Amino acid sequence: MSSTYRGKNLTLTVFGQSHSSAIGAVLDGVPAGFHPDMDKLQSFMKRRAPGQNKMSTQRREADVPEILSGLAGGATCGAPLAFMIRNTDQRSNDYAEICDAPRPGHADFTAHVKYGGHNDVAGGGHFSGRLTAPICAAGGVLLQYLRDHGVTVAAHIENIGKAADVRFDAANVTGDELDALLRKDFPVIDDSAADRMAEEIEKARLAADSVGGVIECAVCGLPAGLGDPMFDGIENRLAQALFAIPAVKGVEFGAGFAVADMLGSENNDPFFMDGDTVRTKTNNHGGILGGITSGMPLIFRIALKPTPSIGKEQDTVSLSNTENTRLTVKGRHDPCVVVRAVPVVEAVAALVLADLMIG
Amino acid sequence: MSSTYRGKNLTLTVFGQSHSSAIGAVLDGVPAGFHPDMDKLQSFMKRRAPGQNKMSTQRREADVPEILSGLAGGATCGAPLAFMIRNTDQRSNDYAEICDAPRPGHADFTAHVKYGGHNDVAGGGHFSGRLTAPICAAGGVLLQYLRDHGVTVAAHIENIGKAADVRFDAANVTGDELDALLRKDFPVIDDSAADRMAEEIEKARLAADSVGGVIECAVCGLPAGLGDPMFDGIENRLAQALFAIPAVKGVEFGAGFAVADMLGSENNDPFFMDGDTVRTKTNNHGGILGGITSGMPLIFRIALKPTPSIGKEQDTVSLSNTENTRLTVKGRHDPCVVVRAVPVVEAVAALVLADLMIG
Amino acid sequence: MSSTYRGKNLTLTVFGQSHSSAIGAVLDGVPAGFHPDMDKLQSFMKRRAPGQNKMSTQRREADVPEILSGLAGGATCGAPLAFMIRNTDQRSNDYAEICDAPRPGHADFTAHVKYGGHNDVAGGGHFSGRLTAPICAAGGVLLQYLRDHGVTVAAHIENIGKAADVRFDAANVTGDELDALLRKDFPVIDDSAADRMAEEIEKARLAADSVGGVIECAVCGLPAGLGDPMFDGIENRLAQALFAIPAVKGVEFGAGFAVADMLGSENNDPFFMDGDTVRTKTNNHGGILGGITSGMPLIFRIALKPTPSIGKEQDTVSLSNTENTRLTVKGRHDPCVVVRAVPVVEAVAALVLADLMIG
Amino acid sequence: MSSTYRGKNLTLTVFGQSHSSAIGAVLDGVPAGFHPDMDKLQSFMKRRAPGQNKMSTQRREADVPEILSGLAGGATCGAPLAFMIRNTDQRSNDYAEICDAPRPGHADFTAHVKYGGHNDVAGGGHFSGRLTAPICAAGGVLLQYLRDHGVTVAAHIENIGKAADVRFDAANVTGDELDALLRKDFPVIDDSAADRMAEEIEKARLAADSVGGVIECAVCGLPAGLGDPMFDGIENRLAQALFAIPAVKGVEFGAGFAVADMLGSENNDPFFMDGDTVRTKTNNHGGILGGITSGMPLIFRIALKPTPSIGKEQDTVSLSNTENTRLTVKGRHDPCVVVRAVPVVEAVAALVLADLMIG
Repeated sequence: MSSTYRGKNLTLTVFGQSHSSAIGAVLDGVPAGFHPDMDKLQSFMKRRAPGQNKMSTQRREADVPEILSGLAGGATCGAPLAFMIRNTDQRSNDYAEICDAPRPGHADFTAHVKYGGHNDVAGGGHFSGRLTAPICAAGGVLLQYLRDHGVTVAAHIENIGKAADVRFDAANVTGDELDALLRKDFPVIDDSAADRMAEEIEKARLAADSVGGVIECAVCGLPAGLGDPMFDGIENRLAQALFAIPAVKGVEFGAGFAVADMLGSENNDPFFMDGDTVRTKTNNHGGILGGITSGMPLIFRIALKPTPSIGKEQDTVSLSNTENTRLTVKGRHDPCVVVRAVPVVEAVAALVLADLMIG
Repeated sequence: MSSTYRGKNLTLTVFGQSHSSAIGAVLDGVPAGFHPDMDKLQSFMKRRAPGQNKMSTQRREADVPEILSGLAGGATCGAPLAFMIRNTDQRSNDYAEICDAPRPGHADFTAHVKYGGHNDVAGGGHFSGRLTAPICAAGGVLLQYLRDHGVTVAAHIENIGKAADVRFDAANVTGDELDALLRKDFPVIDDSAADRMAEEIEKARLAADSVGGVIECAVCGLPAGLGDPMFDGIENRLAQALFAIPAVKGVEFGAGFAVADMLGSENNDPFFMDGDTVRTKTNNHGGILGGITSGMPLIFRIALKPTPSIGKEQDTVSLSNTENTRLTVKGRHDPCVVVRAVPVVEAVAALVLADLMIG
Repeated sequence: MSSTYRGKNLTLTVFGQSHSSAIGAVLDGVPAGFHPDMDKLQSFMKRRAPGQNKMSTQRREADVPEILSGLAGGATCGAPLAFMIRNTDQRSNDYAEICDAPRPGHADFTAHVKYGGHNDVAGGGHFSGRLTAPICAAGGVLLQYLRDHGVTVAAHIENIGKAADVRFDAANVTGDELDALLRKDFPVIDDSAADRMAEEIEKARLAADSVGGVIECAVCGLPAGLGDPMFDGIENRLAQALFAIPAVKGVEFGAGFAVADMLGSENNDPFFMDGDTVRTKTNNHGGILGGITSGMPLIFRIALKPTPSIGKEQDTVSLSNTENTRLTVKGRHDPCVVVRAVPVVEAVAALVLADLMIG
Repeated sequence: MSSTYRGKNLTLTVFGQSHSSAIGAVLDGVPAGFHPDMDKLQSFMKRRAPGQNKMSTQRREADVPEILSGLAGGATCGAPLAFMIRNTDQRSNDYAEICDAPRPGHADFTAHVKYGGHNDVAGGGHFSGRLTAPICAAGGVLLQYLRDHGVTVAAHIENIGKAADVRFDAANVTGDELDALLRKDFPVIDDSAADRMAEEIEKARLAADSVGGVIECAVCGLPAGLGDPMFDGIENRLAQALFAIPAVKGVEFGAGFAVADMLGSENNDPFFMDGDTVRTKTNNHGGILGGITSGMPLIFRIALKPTPSIGKEQDTVSLSNTENTRLTVKGRHDPCVVVRAVPVVEAVAALVLADLMIG
């Protein structure tokens, strides 16, 4: 494993398995003297917590992180922040079968090969979406830090299956609009999209199936000049970190894959003076040119595959008998992880961006 | 800048500006005793060299890298391989105007902010596509290394503007098919796409405009079990490295963004026994599950924006006068960088993958 | 802070403060399928635990690490190993005064500057020797791993003040001799040194003072060929890691500083064939040539300063009044940390060396 | 190999072998807009150049580094600085014999094992002291940068064999005194030591032998608060980097190994107010407490072993015949590398410290 993200100033180390006695994270490099607001952190983490509604897994966990260290008198003291969440609701028996028959779409098979059969299969082990909880604990603190420095990060569901929200107005989205988005129960810009998305999810659930989606994230308030090309530019770093979220299969910035079908004269964003500030009229570049922030809103999108755990019977193999077999995945599963992934995307973006805002 | 890629075993450091006296790269960590074939390296590099046809820039450079160190008796000796390419054909005068008026779509403005106006504007400086030449020198050696270990990497142009090639047959593509692709003058699977693509480029050229595209890359022969999730999985590492290629705005693996519109039962790739080997019937996962190779062909795609340098007059600002102005970019420019970027994509993939094949 | 050691295969992250609710460490990269022996780990950690005798601090703590994650069925599963030790015996009141008056020889002042006065002063915060407990937890597992691969690490006290042990016979020390050393209650080669050392410590204790010392460490069983010069050779890596132990002020390998007064003909270790093995007659090189192991015993020494916490009144300053003042450090303190540091040195060596033995 | 030093802001990559066509270094992260003074750089590098006097090797090389990239209009532009020095005076024939018979004290044997016999034996290959020339090129620029920011770095020879200089007055040494030291032809504080040292060297030379020494380095003008414990504190980083210098076998800070024989009441440096500045009366801590600079002069010492290349016949083995044999090392060799190593030590210190001064 390599579960440490090393930025320029921040280092995040994630530990735990779905069914280990605890999961957690260590975040090193937060400037001393910062007071995390624990209530806000709790609210933030609740956005990804399971068991909130019929759209997500029925597993219910408090997911209240204990901060083991890193604070003195309620403020960061320079020492690493350590977060721990106890695993209290475990049903390992559900996973007995999959030790031998890897679930299609999961890491069971590849982990089996890499770890010589010693990988922790229960609940997906270290590959479980549950590991995004400590990422949210750390990222939630960093989102507060960014907010204190004038930077707002907010994501919405661009689509779930066929049900689509509108996109951000990339050149004009404001921090206030992002704030409004963050206050919503269901993270879409066009509220009418929420019902259509719920329908898509329900349809998949009833079919013992699952459905994927796209999350779009915007960041307002970043100064121009952040990023270290060629290998540590904003896109390099964000992409590296975002692929740590389970189920992500694509990342794009600004106009993204649509640039392939554009002319230079369409794609180039003309500069203009907005008072004393250099801005661009359009924002196909997504706030990043040459790997460096331009001061325009940073815009990116990630594609999330449908939850691989589905109720339908599937073809797979028996690793011990090296023969074909069939498998029905038991246990509780989200028909769609996209909703709960929205705060995770914000958390990961905060990790990468706060790292560059510090110092 | 952060122009060093640090893998587990390999470290690549790139230096140079478009118009500095030389450009180059240092590649550390290649196993000792490997004999690079210099003729093959030259042929490989020729694929990205400019001035080959009317589809690319008229700048003509030999781009023959001198190997300054790292060999003893023609074989790698454990010391870093250093490649240098002299810059011989420079026209810095073309760039006088853009010191003050940043070119839309280029890094001129963001570099100006980051480097306090000290950035080397000429030819794009360190941001120039020219810096992909030393990446190809290093990657070309690594492609040979991979080949010696049974791994073949080949990319093709999936589309340029509206002109599209077919895609790889992701679950069934073979090393032999990749070899055949590598022997082609124009890297497409369906040869009839070449003419249509050339037309798109010519159309853009005549309009003093430019056009973007998508490159798809396949890797055959990788063993299962490579990659170090969560932050150094194959997708994390490839994405981080691929965004070092100028103009890349999106990266996707396997089915990529299309997963957002799929059901789990469609997207999950069923396992089956192929003799003694575990394979999947489909390959939506692109050869990577949980950040670890599955042994299936690795498939990814990148989106390249249209060259920002176009002949049309564009809106921009004067940085000294902080007022709006207009700019016509002079100099020679590719109407489309996609063709020349194909070997660069292969070189970057080789860097990431050879790193994990070693030791 | 930068409390993460990143090796080639292993990453160790340490968290906690002397008086935070817990301290701990996350160790990533241990090969899957390894069964740590918890009893042996407990015995190893007991060697550094406080409160064992009158020679060390009276603070009594169980220091039993809980393994939060990283195991499945008692064996490592590829996921990071997380260790946590609860802090149960805290007396923060003892430290009220030093918030304003930095203790000479401690990090109070420098941490105050670096963290803008937000550092956790209690018990030394993250700078406390207590943080070596989780390092021992992680290192203890790695010592077992090394042992399983034929590598034995053992250290002894070379001297405490004027009381000196004999040195290792650097060219001839064997794994069996190291085993014998590890079984001793007091880690010296010449048992008669133990009483003399105890006397030095008692003398310091009675004088409300403290005393420093030197620890010498030997490693037997390492293969030749480990190490990545120039910046990641064995000496570079060991030195970097060893200076993480509080109070270390010097590191030397083989003959160390004595080489300054030697002729080449004395210092050079002649090679000879010992059966099929290339060995050296002497071992001034300490098992490392050019940053790479030679297969000879690895020998290094570290100098530990006397505990800065002493009972005597000392000159210092008031940071708030910016005036001179005097301070008497209260609380319980070791008159000598050298004895308890011996397993810490072994643990740190194990971290660096296991990292290179893996893969 | 791992010939890249990665700091927080700076990355240095060194390439070349003693007899490759060139050696060099790439330095990434120097702030843009800095004007290196090339004459001063040349003067600095001359201090380590060979062939200057009878005290050093007779190999004569201009060692004028060509700056291949990283400058625009004479100032750093944000792109990596690449330095190249051509190797013009090579005598590979001298090294034929040692391919089979490793030289005692050299890396020949360990490199043979590590690189499977493919290592470049000629002149020591990548392990040659010659590789310190590009380190000096990069470090020389950084010394200028530090100077511009009020930081002066200077080292002197503390002893060569029995001939000893006085030490720095650690608590009181000033930047002016360091400046005076830097202007000397022979870097000692007490000029009378120079003759005695020259005698030691000459004695060794006449005996076809060599002699080691100690270099002491002081740094004035550093602010308090630099360093990132526990693994990236000043001592960790300096030690890691200093062991990249060939022949270094020990590193100590402040009182160093002498602390082992001190009482806490002797070793603790009392704080006092010097006007508005907190200083210490003594400086046993060498300007570093808890891995963080205190604002007092930074003091460290390194031990250099005698040059392993000596004219005397030595015992070794034949690697091909696996039998004992004898070897007389031919070629030109320094009887003492200590004098030429002084600027190398300053350059390495500059690398580590400038890294932390930036940003």
